[in-house]
Amino acid sequence: MSNKVKIAVDAMGGENSPKKIIKAIESSLSSNSENFFYIYGDEFLIKKEIKENSLFNNNSEIINTKDFIKDDESPLSAAKRSKETSMWKTIEALKNKKADIALSAGNTGAMLVISRLLLNTIEGISKPALAALWPNQNNMNVVLDLGANIECNEKNLVDFSSMGSALFKSLFENDLPKIALLNVGLEENKGSEVLKKTYSILKNNKVNNFVFKGYIEGNHIMDGEVDVIVTDGFTGNIALKTAEGTANFITNNLKKSLNVLSKIISYRSLKKFKDKLDPRKYNGAIFLGLESPVVKSHGSTDSIGFAHSINVCNKIIKANLIKKIKSNLITIDPQSKQ
Amino acid sequence: MSNKVKIAVDAMGGENSPKKIIKAIESSLSSNSENFFYIYGDEFLIKKEIKENSLFNNNSEIINTKDFIKDDESPLSAAKRSKETSMWKTIEALKNKKADIALSAGNTGAMLVISRLLLNTIEGISKPALAALWPNQNNMNVVLDLGANIECNEKNLVDFSSMGSALFKSLFENDLPKIALLNVGLEENKGSEVLKKTYSILKNNKVNNFVFKGYIEGNHIMDGEVDVIVTDGFTGNIALKTAEGTANFITNNLKKSLNVLSKIISYRSLKKFKDKLDPRKYNGAIFLGLESPVVKSHGSTDSIGFAHSINVCNKIIKANLIKKIKSNLITIDPQSKQ
Repeated sequence: MSNKVKIAVDAMGGENSPKKIIKAIESSLSSNSENFFYIYGDEFLIKKEIKENSLFNNNSEIINTKDFIKDDESPLSAAKRSKETSMWKTIEALKNKKADIALSAGNTGAMLVISRLLLNTIEGISKPALAALWPNQNNMNVVLDLGANIECNEKNLVDFSSMGSALFKSLFENDLPKIALLNVGLEENKGSEVLKKTYSILKNNKVNNFVFKGYIEGNHIMDGEVDVIVTDGFTGNIALKTAEGTANFITNNLKKSLNVLSKIISYRSLKKFKDKLDPRKYNGAIFLGLESPVVKSHGSTDSIGFAHSINVCNKIIKANLIKKIKSNLITIDPQSKQ
Repeated sequence: MSNKVKIAVDAMGGENSPKKIIKAIESSLSSNSENFFYIYGDEFLIKKEIKENSLFNNNSEIINTKDFIKDDESPLSAAKRSKETSMWKTIEALKNKKADIALSAGNTGAMLVISRLLLNTIEGISKPALAALWPNQNNMNVVLDLGANIECNEKNLVDFSSMGSALFKSLFENDLPKIALLNVGLEENKGSEVLKKTYSILKNNKVNNFVFKGYIEGNHIMDGEVDVIVTDGFTGNIALKTAEGTANFITNNLKKSLNVLSKIISYRSLKKFKDKLDPRKYNGAIFLGLESPVVKSHGSTDSIGFAHSINVCNKIIKANLIKKIKSNLITIDPQSKQ
């Protein structure tokens, strides 16, 4: 077991849990023998969902928990009363070095608060950040921060660049990701003072862990020209959700527009289109900057989406993300600020 | 002529100008007799494009200008050397009270700088803002600011609410628009300090010019639940461009996916879909808060898009937008901040 990727899973968070969680673990176990799961939640409910007993018996351990955090609970009040919940126990498995990585489809806010309460920040990083995958013309971007930090300074944005590039390297085979800062224009004098300072630091950065491509505007996020897009948590959250809303708006209108006959005739091509944009493939977010990574799967995703998140957990640990983050860190040289 | 809506038009800005500008004016003149156009630009090039002489002779005046601002020129350097350009002269027509409203498809940054140089701000408003129309499930939203002000305080956001609601009332028949602040969550304690202060002022606002609906998240901008969405210029610009990029990404992928047969069969329904999302209908932006409104049409739009912008100009003046803004203004009561 020591060679296995040890994943702590909160079985109780999100819609249709633990059903979808167990189905996803089952699907992962049948295709990949590298993972071992610590499953936290209501043992009775979990066992009811298990179909393939032998796979589960050899590659998982169920730890019964008495309580769980509701999806609509306020993060702070949830964190206060949460010590017996499945989410707390899941993240505590990282603190105890029992597991390598934690995964939950539950309350995002509570997950951020509990992670920060239980886990230390990586030395040199002042604020952890929430990163997600975003589809583009070629493959996928990493975008961060998506809401963990409403206000950020240049040190935070530089850290996000280091962490984002380490995540991109871990998920995709690429040793020199291209990084850009999200801004309202491409010229060096555009945007806030914090962005200008970050631009100057990254431009003069001598650590060759990524290629700094300057600024990027919102309409080019999906062009596939860069791999990592860095922004503060407020802007990132608005951008991600606006993209989500726009995508829903367009696909809903398209559905209403197409008649039955053309839906039948275009079945295959529409399926290809749908597959490419399938949000389950890039579902979830990764909380970076703590001593162990914590992965958040979308609350409304199904077992296929959750299985994708398990796959992300596996890749992150096998690629040694935390080590990559540490070796990627940029020390801000006071001269580079000038 | 005194009853006409007097529109000053920069004929030289944007792609394919002055051709598309003249075609749009021609189309507007043939369907609407309420407008009179002051057309600024290269007289020779403009006259070459005019097909319906009598309509033009009775309802327009061409004013020859010697220079024009390039679309990729830096706004500040353009503004400095711009006194003989078509854009400067177009906006100067407002300062001289010759025209009621100005319209250009040229360089946005230069337009903002020149407008602020030449025109006074409405008393009580500290910063003008750039507003645009955004399609939603029911009709259209007004969203502002979209990039005129990178950093905003609560006074600015409250002004934007007043101006945005006045614009919505002018364009659509609705005396009590619903207003929301763009944020990363719905709870009163979410977001930046500026947003929290703005929330508190709008909540306690006693001027019954709009209904304050609290916060809205990016994924609900297009739901049609609110009419006016208020944000700072940085966030608004990122949101608008991200939506634009997402829409392009999806429609490009859809185009690639559909086969010829299904394109033929679905021709009518796809046309309906395309028409609903046609960016020409909500093309452009309105610069609000100055003594006269300045309208910016998208540089890459065609004559149909530019004609839509002419229509927006007509509506704004007929609805007496500036008067509506003045009567909508909220004086910030120090007590409401508590």
